[in-house]
Amino acid sequence: MALLDDLKWRYATKKYDSTKNVAQEDVDKIVEAARLAPTSSGLQQFKVIVITNQELKNKIVPIAADQQIVADCSHLLVFVAWDKYSAERIDGQYDYITDERNLPRGRFSSYTDRLKKLYLNQTENENFVHTARQAYIGLGLAIAQAAELKVDSTPMEGFNNDALDELLDLHLKGLRSVLLLPLGYRDAENDWLEKMKKVRKPKEEFVIEYK
Amino acid sequence: MALLDDLKWRYATKKYDSTKNVAQEDVDKIVEAARLAPTSSGLQQFKVIVITNQELKNKIVPIAADQQIVADCSHLLVFVAWDKYSAERIDGQYDYITDERNLPRGRFSSYTDRLKKLYLNQTENENFVHTARQAYIGLGLAIAQAAELKVDSTPMEGFNNDALDELLDLHLKGLRSVLLLPLGYRDAENDWLEKMKKVRKPKEEFVIEYK
Repeated sequence: MALLDDLKWRYATKKYDSTKNVAQEDVDKIVEAARLAPTSSGLQQFKVIVITNQELKNKIVPIAADQQIVADCSHLLVFVAWDKYSAERIDGQYDYITDERNLPRGRFSSYTDRLKKLYLNQTENENFVHTARQAYIGLGLAIAQAAELKVDSTPMEGFNNDALDELLDLHLKGLRSVLLLPLGYRDAENDWLEKMKKVRKPKEEFVIEYK
Repeated sequence: MALLDDLKWRYATKKYDSTKNVAQEDVDKIVEAARLAPTSSGLQQFKVIVITNQELKNKIVPIAADQQIVADCSHLLVFVAWDKYSAERIDGQYDYITDERNLPRGRFSSYTDRLKKLYLNQTENENFVHTARQAYIGLGLAIAQAAELKVDSTPMEGFNNDALDELLDLHLKGLRSVLLLPLGYRDAENDWLEKMKKVRKPKEEFVIEYK
């Protein structure tokens, strides 16, 4: 089915059928869509954590404003981003890129020097404002891939980021949590939102044209 | 074609064939994918500006680090986000949502009260950090839709946001620029990146699993 149909089909599922699990093959495709996401300067500033451990999902419920979908979903994805830029991270990614393309390391050094000058002169918070944005591109593509597979998902920002970072020891990995994305299958009968019309601003309000 | 194939096909096009235009029907679908994007609390904090006016595209070249793709592309999309939250913006969107769903206005007032308490106590800059993130979801979906239609695109952050806001009078509209997305058709022969292997971190580095 075409992407637009998939996007019309999907909605932010509010109640999951906790007895239904998403096949690993489908989860792999959803994560792969996020992995293929374009990112600023190709740095891939974000990663995805996939949680199926029920005990861990249960621990996240109180961190996520007691939203039960975190426990009831089949797979809980956590989108996490670099806490800050470093020369090692920038050089590491570009060494990998040049190696994969059979180019000499340093081929893009004038570009990476500019990136370092830009990001390493910012505060850590300014760095994270930028790295976190990239995770949203991956979220968009993961949601689209889930919908193509008729897997339900719920993009979520409403959780205590610091508490989740602590629970998952993200600071040790130089990462910070950005978004949650429960995956699973809707419990249509008990989901108030399932029956509601999808509402978006009309095109005339969404688009501004300069012809 | 499936989304994963589309994502493998696409790349950040560096050289457009300025003689080829994207059909309006295709541009409409790309904008529609962005319009259908999920956003935080359903507020649709971002919009898309579509520029085909050549004079205006030319004026944006120096604002965008002299990148000629801004002039050579068929359509230049500018993703813009709310400069800040306001009670009017939040209530306006929820009045529209309840009207469209034939629900009484105020049906979600306890929720919108919480949103106002949260966002109106933040600085304008904190507000924009949040609204700008939403534009990246739309960018991801626009890129995916373009790829499905075999339309090339180039996500771009590297431009002078203040200068573009000024040029497009965005402050008068309560908006700020976030991203550029030129659309068009690649000039494969003259695009250095077209021949390069797409590189992404291997799955083992991208994913962390808790089973």
